[in-house]
Amino acid sequence: MGPNRQVLLASRPQGAVSPENFRIVEVPVPEPGEGEALVRNEWLSLDPYMRGRMSDAKSYVAPVEVGAVMVGQTVGEVVRSRDPGLREGDKVLTSLGWQLYGVAKAKSLTRVDASRVPASYYLGILGMPGITAWFGLFEIGKPKAGETVVVSAASGAVGSVVGQLAKGEGCRVVGIAGGKRKCDYVTGELGFDACVDYREGKLSDALRAACPKGIDVDFENVGGTILDTVLRQMNLFSRVVVCGLIAEYDAQKPYGYTALRSILVNRIRMQGMIVFDWQARYGEALADLAARVSAGKLRYRESIVEGLENAPAGLIALLSGGNFGKQLVKLA
Amino acid sequence: MGPNRQVLLASRPQGAVSPENFRIVEVPVPEPGEGEALVRNEWLSLDPYMRGRMSDAKSYVAPVEVGAVMVGQTVGEVVRSRDPGLREGDKVLTSLGWQLYGVAKAKSLTRVDASRVPASYYLGILGMPGITAWFGLFEIGKPKAGETVVVSAASGAVGSVVGQLAKGEGCRVVGIAGGKRKCDYVTGELGFDACVDYREGKLSDALRAACPKGIDVDFENVGGTILDTVLRQMNLFSRVVVCGLIAEYDAQKPYGYTALRSILVNRIRMQGMIVFDWQARYGEALADLAARVSAGKLRYRESIVEGLENAPAGLIALLSGGNFGKQLVKLA
Repeated sequence: MGPNRQVLLASRPQGAVSPENFRIVEVPVPEPGEGEALVRNEWLSLDPYMRGRMSDAKSYVAPVEVGAVMVGQTVGEVVRSRDPGLREGDKVLTSLGWQLYGVAKAKSLTRVDASRVPASYYLGILGMPGITAWFGLFEIGKPKAGETVVVSAASGAVGSVVGQLAKGEGCRVVGIAGGKRKCDYVTGELGFDACVDYREGKLSDALRAACPKGIDVDFENVGGTILDTVLRQMNLFSRVVVCGLIAEYDAQKPYGYTALRSILVNRIRMQGMIVFDWQARYGEALADLAARVSAGKLRYRESIVEGLENAPAGLIALLSGGNFGKQLVKLA
Repeated sequence: MGPNRQVLLASRPQGAVSPENFRIVEVPVPEPGEGEALVRNEWLSLDPYMRGRMSDAKSYVAPVEVGAVMVGQTVGEVVRSRDPGLREGDKVLTSLGWQLYGVAKAKSLTRVDASRVPASYYLGILGMPGITAWFGLFEIGKPKAGETVVVSAASGAVGSVVGQLAKGEGCRVVGIAGGKRKCDYVTGELGFDACVDYREGKLSDALRAACPKGIDVDFENVGGTILDTVLRQMNLFSRVVVCGLIAEYDAQKPYGYTALRSILVNRIRMQGMIVFDWQARYGEALADLAARVSAGKLRYRESIVEGLENAPAGLIALLSGGNFGKQLVKLA
């Protein structure tokens, strides 16, 4: 077994993330203490929030320290347990970050059932992205049948679930994504009614054509020009779920939004969200999502990078829109 | 009686409103038809929303046509009635606009009781501004005891009521106003805990000093730099009531807000409002406001311009922050 390898934050990015912001080190595999377990990570989740943790700007939580292991969720297998609640071979969801092995308190590990769905699903459609989509759409967006729902980053881990859930509510669902391939996936495989390719330019015209009755719910994962354009086409009493502003993460200067008057004129409710706020209710979302997945009602795609050493490149691709579906790193 | 005089919209303003945008004409006093009443207007209300109606940009309602009488609420006296529901001498609230006399359907006129409070109060603290403050604060802001509430345009018709209502809820209340005289009024007569003078510069520092625990509710009447600065100091799960964006009305180019990331990070709920949305519940707000006024618990100040010919100057002063309290024009 081992050695362990870890990806550390080497420096904070100025603007876009680059490979130099990371450093790979080899360290001994740690020993679990009483009540702890040693986990061999199999899948690492890459998510847009990681960009925020690399900066020291105020955010949800403290930033990653320079020299520390990059944060992240993984799914792995227990290889040694010193807690009666866990056995060798158990598959668990962890917060062990970008490394091959890690030790954690058994209480902090969630056992997952990998017999019906692949274990990696617990990092995506049955994990934080899926739960984010579920609470954001139903608790803040509150779509009603016949309404038009717009989803940015529509082919992504969150957006793809949001759109499929909104279709199930009887809404017209319009995605926004970058490139023809993603848009074809969004309308073809995911079943959205339309998808606007923001790389084609003329976003405003294309959006208006796709949303002839205006927009009632915007599930915002991107921000910047996209949000500013969407705001101008929102209807009376519409809702904006602010789930992510990935367009701003790399920017040296924050984007200047010029469409806020629409919030006043149209009495828009715009609300920020982070999935942790519903922690006590995760089970509710998970049960519903799992049922839909089992019934084949939720399509889901993973984008896989092989090997820990390629995790930095995977994150960089994700942040620049180069990925497709839920971004994972296969570690074992 | 008469002749009638009217202020017409002569042209749409490019940027700031100027006297040339208005024209005064003399016309005959109209005759009421069956079911109508002739009203002699005594008080005309001047309000920030009028700036919007002078433009042809999309807003709540259609703009005033060039050549038409400027819109506005008045309080006046019935001088001739052809409806059994109204008698000569009745005081009524009207939407007759900027003119000395006008005819309206009796059903569109609301009789007001001028025996306990001055009739002009129905244009302010017991009118749309007071009702706006009441619903905006209680239905959207939802302040809790111990929270910090910030109110921009704090000495104005809406802001002054918002702050006093929030004090009644046990909140720390901080106003934002322009100039020492207004700030002294806000802390002295209105009883706010602090007032920040935005004309002094260093708004961010001054606001931070006045809100050491951050901001839980922002009742926004101004927008622009003020809102952008406030957003950066808002707490987790805070609320922004977007009631007015007066700083934007004159701008040739909309303001570029750079603090939207705070909405995501702090899970802020930002919501636009217009008092008409609660029309069915006006009575509820009015009863409570009237009780507070009668009990001497709500301080209120009027800023009076004499004569219809001075209404344009009054509106221009209001839009540039030159007024003090509720802005009225005395017509008779």
